Amino acid sequence: MGSNANFFLIISIVVSFVAFIFAGWLYKWVSKQPSSNSRIAEMGEHIRKGANTFLRKEYTVLAKFSGVVAVLIFLFLPSPVWQGNLWENLTMAIAYIAGTAFSAAAGKIGIQIATIANKKTAEAAQKGIHGAFLCGFRGGAVMGMAVVGSSLLGVALVFILTKNATALLGFSFGASSLALFAKAGGGIFTKTADISADLVGKVELGIPEDDPRNPAVIADNVGDNVGDVAGMGADLFDSNVASMAAALVMATALDGGIGQNVSMVFCYAAIGLFASIIGVAAARMGKNDNPTFALNSSTYITTAIFGVLTAAATWFFGFRWEIWGASAVGLLVGVIIGIASDYFTDDRRPPVRKTAKASESGPAFTILSGVSYGFLSTMPALVGIGLSALISYKLCEGIGEGYALFGISMAAVGMLSIVGMIISNDAYGPIVDNARGLAEMGSLGDKVLEITDSLDSAGNTVKAVTKGFAIGAAGLTVIALLGAFISEVNVAAVEMGLVPAGQLFLTGFDIMDPNVFFGMLVGAAIPAVFSAMLMLGVNRNAQRMVEEIHRQFDEIPGLKEGKEGVDPEYDRCIEIATTGAIKELIPAGLMSIIATLLVGFIGGVTAIGGFLTGNIVSGLLLALFMSNSGGLWDNTKKYVESGANGGKGSDTHKAAVIGDTVGDPFKDTAGPSINTQITVVSLVSSLMSVLFLSFSLIR
Amino acid sequence: MGSNANFFLIISIVVSFVAFIFAGWLYKWVSKQPSSNSRIAEMGEHIRKGANTFLRKEYTVLAKFSGVVAVLIFLFLPSPVWQGNLWENLTMAIAYIAGTAFSAAAGKIGIQIATIANKKTAEAAQKGIHGAFLCGFRGGAVMGMAVVGSSLLGVALVFILTKNATALLGFSFGASSLALFAKAGGGIFTKTADISADLVGKVELGIPEDDPRNPAVIADNVGDNVGDVAGMGADLFDSNVASMAAALVMATALDGGIGQNVSMVFCYAAIGLFASIIGVAAARMGKNDNPTFALNSSTYITTAIFGVLTAAATWFFGFRWEIWGASAVGLLVGVIIGIASDYFTDDRRPPVRKTAKASESGPAFTILSGVSYGFLSTMPALVGIGLSALISYKLCEGIGEGYALFGISMAAVGMLSIVGMIISNDAYGPIVDNARGLAEMGSLGDKVLEITDSLDSAGNTVKAVTKGFAIGAAGLTVIALLGAFISEVNVAAVEMGLVPAGQLFLTGFDIMDPNVFFGMLVGAAIPAVFSAMLMLGVNRNAQRMVEEIHRQFDEIPGLKEGKEGVDPEYDRCIEIATTGAIKELIPAGLMSIIATLLVGFIGGVTAIGGFLTGNIVSGLLLALFMSNSGGLWDNTKKYVESGANGGKGSDTHKAAVIGDTVGDPFKDTAGPSINTQITVVSLVSSLMSVLFLSFSLIR
Repeated sequence: MGSNANFFLIISIVVSFVAFIFAGWLYKWVSKQPSSNSRIAEMGEHIRKGANTFLRKEYTVLAKFSGVVAVLIFLFLPSPVWQGNLWENLTMAIAYIAGTAFSAAAGKIGIQIATIANKKTAEAAQKGIHGAFLCGFRGGAVMGMAVVGSSLLGVALVFILTKNATALLGFSFGASSLALFAKAGGGIFTKTADISADLVGKVELGIPEDDPRNPAVIADNVGDNVGDVAGMGADLFDSNVASMAAALVMATALDGGIGQNVSMVFCYAAIGLFASIIGVAAARMGKNDNPTFALNSSTYITTAIFGVLTAAATWFFGFRWEIWGASAVGLLVGVIIGIASDYFTDDRRPPVRKTAKASESGPAFTILSGVSYGFLSTMPALVGIGLSALISYKLCEGIGEGYALFGISMAAVGMLSIVGMIISNDAYGPIVDNARGLAEMGSLGDKVLEITDSLDSAGNTVKAVTKGFAIGAAGLTVIALLGAFISEVNVAAVEMGLVPAGQLFLTGFDIMDPNVFFGMLVGAAIPAVFSAMLMLGVNRNAQRMVEEIHRQFDEIPGLKEGKEGVDPEYDRCIEIATTGAIKELIPAGLMSIIATLLVGFIGGVTAIGGFLTGNIVSGLLLALFMSNSGGLWDNTKKYVESGANGGKGSDTHKAAVIGDTVGDPFKDTAGPSINTQITVVSLVSSLMSVLFLSFSLIR
Repeated sequence: MGSNANFFLIISIVVSFVAFIFAGWLYKWVSKQPSSNSRIAEMGEHIRKGANTFLRKEYTVLAKFSGVVAVLIFLFLPSPVWQGNLWENLTMAIAYIAGTAFSAAAGKIGIQIATIANKKTAEAAQKGIHGAFLCGFRGGAVMGMAVVGSSLLGVALVFILTKNATALLGFSFGASSLALFAKAGGGIFTKTADISADLVGKVELGIPEDDPRNPAVIADNVGDNVGDVAGMGADLFDSNVASMAAALVMATALDGGIGQNVSMVFCYAAIGLFASIIGVAAARMGKNDNPTFALNSSTYITTAIFGVLTAAATWFFGFRWEIWGASAVGLLVGVIIGIASDYFTDDRRPPVRKTAKASESGPAFTILSGVSYGFLSTMPALVGIGLSALISYKLCEGIGEGYALFGISMAAVGMLSIVGMIISNDAYGPIVDNARGLAEMGSLGDKVLEITDSLDSAGNTVKAVTKGFAIGAAGLTVIALLGAFISEVNVAAVEMGLVPAGQLFLTGFDIMDPNVFFGMLVGAAIPAVFSAMLMLGVNRNAQRMVEEIHRQFDEIPGLKEGKEGVDPEYDRCIEIATTGAIKELIPAGLMSIIATLLVGFIGGVTAIGGFLTGNIVSGLLLALFMSNSGGLWDNTKKYVESGANGGKGSDTHKAAVIGDTVGDPFKDTAGPSINTQITVVSLVSSLMSVLFLSFSLIR
């Protein structure tokens, strides 16, 4: 191992630990904040317990699932154990388990702090917005630091111990498996609870949101945590690991082992985490009392620090400037995609305004307008991703054979470099959303609700930006994974004797090859089918939960009337949401994996190339469409509620609420889960490359 | 010219004339049917005039537009006139004009008969369903025969006169230009009128659909004709011509002029038209009084005749069986796609039933359920198109170099072979829909309305099937056009001296080439943006029209009360819908074309390859999604109206109506226009290939 690379591996591990220490400090800081309201403590405790119930159940199912997968990996991957190398297969299986475990641990920590920070934020809001903001933000930052620290640590450890980039794909696949459960499962959970709480509470009985009589109210608040904190954290853990894994697979191939390029990947990743630490530490609200501004400016600070420090490192360690350029382009495009997402969901911009106006003609026009702007919003992001891939490729292709694709993977690493900051911002959202709920349950008064509402609205705006980032990064990562897939196939083809050493079996995928084309069309259908299965799952699950809520209101005497001391059975609702989420998620996940296997065993590696491409194209399109139109409807509703176009209670408002209900599973269940689906499928393909090469119907 | 090919060209022309004669006979038969009701005659006359107003306006704008395009073609295509061949450019420009003219003529004839047949069908329904069915169907068949006859005649004539397959691309581009105006413009027109008539009439004033007091009621009925008759006819004219043009470009390249493969294309096309004539002639309703059954069985008869006769011709003339297989696979897959579309929109199947059930919980669930099933419905069609491309390629690749892609183009020709039958079925829909409206306006009584409702419902079911067919065929055609694009580029590259004669400049498009990838992502965004622009256009246009309706109700005394002799100013509404439709359509069309030019001049021919691929993938996905979920919502509403889940007037019904309103622009404006958008972009690319090759930023 080159001493230089060793140095950066150690630096990465050190920075990870710094992140952990910082997270610990933030954790303590948040925990130390004062709290006194007993009602808040009680309800907060319900939420904490509920979230842990979900995690326990999810992790139990996941443990079984990944146990089976680990055995399969040991038997078959990277090549059947009776043909290949026992040790290599064992490493892969262990790396896979480690991937799930590291991500699960980060998720657990995130939930832990989020369910403390929500209470503290609610109480801090009594003293003003500054303290409340800091409480919410620092709570979120614990998650950010934990996720990025553990992903960097995990990648570095696997790399040091195995000295094998392919094992990283196993680690990455573990992270993806967890993300599938956490993001899609959490997404189903959160929307099940949200929809059924609203349907029975607001619509049927006319009681307010977050009313403690509603048996689903705790499940609803739990949902914010498991969907947006744990789920989103797992999603970005996954993307971050996948981007590093793809870059490292190519870097080791280019270095012929471990050298300058590997150094560069770790150096940039460590700087990204470091920059996020500084950004988080610097975050506080200025005199203008604007939380959105505070969140965005720390993001820009992080971006700037990353740009400057990586340039310094590139100069000092003599890295390639072209590659620095690629990572800078990635980061820049990420910011641009974020800004574009913001445009389509910001209530000061035409899309939300015009959708609110259209809602005056009825809900059908809310939907049509939102769908139209959602479609429009795909353009800047798709063009941005395409351009960043094109530019980073062109920048780096001059360096030498194979560097062009490495450039794309470094653009993805660049885009994800500030992920620590992104997660902190994103986890802030559900914490302050929960704080709002707790403030209502604890009857803290209108002044406090106003503050928590303002914090919440900033959370929504920032969420759109971070989602754009996450989708863009997933897009670039998967292109890089396509490169990793080709690397894997070429290595395997030489080992299998299909081509002599030094010769490439596969250099690309020709669209005019009908295998590729066939794969592409099938791949394009997967995100649509996957989304549909999740959304139908939410519908089915919500029906079960509505039944349970009805049962409780019917059977528990005094509940409907709000008699003192009568509490609903919150746990039953949490139980239903949890079981249902896992039940509905598994077929969708299996469908994606089985489709990959079918295409691979029918059309072989070329069909898989097409399959992944179709999957990326349609996945990006649908993820952007659903996330943005969902965000747009949410903000349209809030905009109307703020008094515009008739205000609360008007027909326009009713129409906007319908839009919001449609948008909920779009933006919180299906849209963001597509990222994970794409990554899972890409990793399955890379891992199965030898098998597809050996056994396929065509070729 | 080979005498064999000459024979088939003459046969094609003869069969076209047989189709015209048959159309004339049908036209006369329909016109001869008795009519007596003066109110129906009056309202029918309004519809006829309105439709002609739209056509006149549309054709006027189109004439200017195509005049400009023809001059541009003359100057630049296939290569700049000062560098190339004056004669060739002139031929191309004339072929382009001929393409618009032939399609326009067929559209005019279709509208003419449709606005007669609607009246006759309404009156025939007084005597029973059999006669009414025959009236509606034969009216539609006039359009079917006119469209297919003129497309085959046009292709044959251009081919005989120019002996140049590239000129066919010009003819095809003309047909596409017209289709863009007719389909997208007609789609905006029809939904503008439909939505505003409903909004003011049904929602605000509570007067029934088709009430003659409503100033938009005639525009609404005109819309059915211009959108579904003229628009859909132009769309399928376009697909049919494009599939033949793509096949012939490759056939002439394979034959090195005109030979066996060219013969085969014309032979199959002529047989397809002949089979449709027989199918149409055989169509009548059996004892079971089931119009759907009657329509479907004539489709199956046509399919069977085509299969048998092409097999006979293949045996007799010694064509290649592999190519026969490809065309049979295409036709078979077309039928399967149709059946799958039917499944997702048929009210006896789970998707509609479950959407109706979901509507009980409110409109948001109608939308979520419909979107989910719409997403699911993309799978069978995408897999079907992928498989038919794969199978036809693999069947034919053994014949020799270049035959594989020719096989795909013949699969498209096979799928479109029965297009005469398809159009007849499809044009039947708006005729009986109009007949229903006229029966209401003419107060023909409930018994008659029941009959026309039953005819109408069959029209809806069949429409879903034919749309699936049209989308599938467009998919295969565009793959074939991608092949034609490569042919064009290779010919040009030799002429430009980029490669020596006999060598190929371009053999395919590598996904890993960042130019291709960039193009692909941009291409994928186009159908989404195009759809969004059309749907927003409908919204804007509907607002204008609602204002006009309000004005008339306010300013015309006695109108609201229905005073005898007081008629609204129907023409003003038609005028607004027409002007608005054209105004809203042009930016969407230009956006697609400008994006193509930008990508081509930035990334060159490889980027265009990616662009077209991304465009096909996302276009198919969105077109299938929007057409099927739109159809599903329409039938869900009808299903609820038939008494299910609460029936008419219930909250479920209200929710279903909202779904239907969302679905209208999905299925009648945006969804089916995407076909045309894809074809236009493909043809622009092929026509511009020399320019992209000469002037591009990259490479």
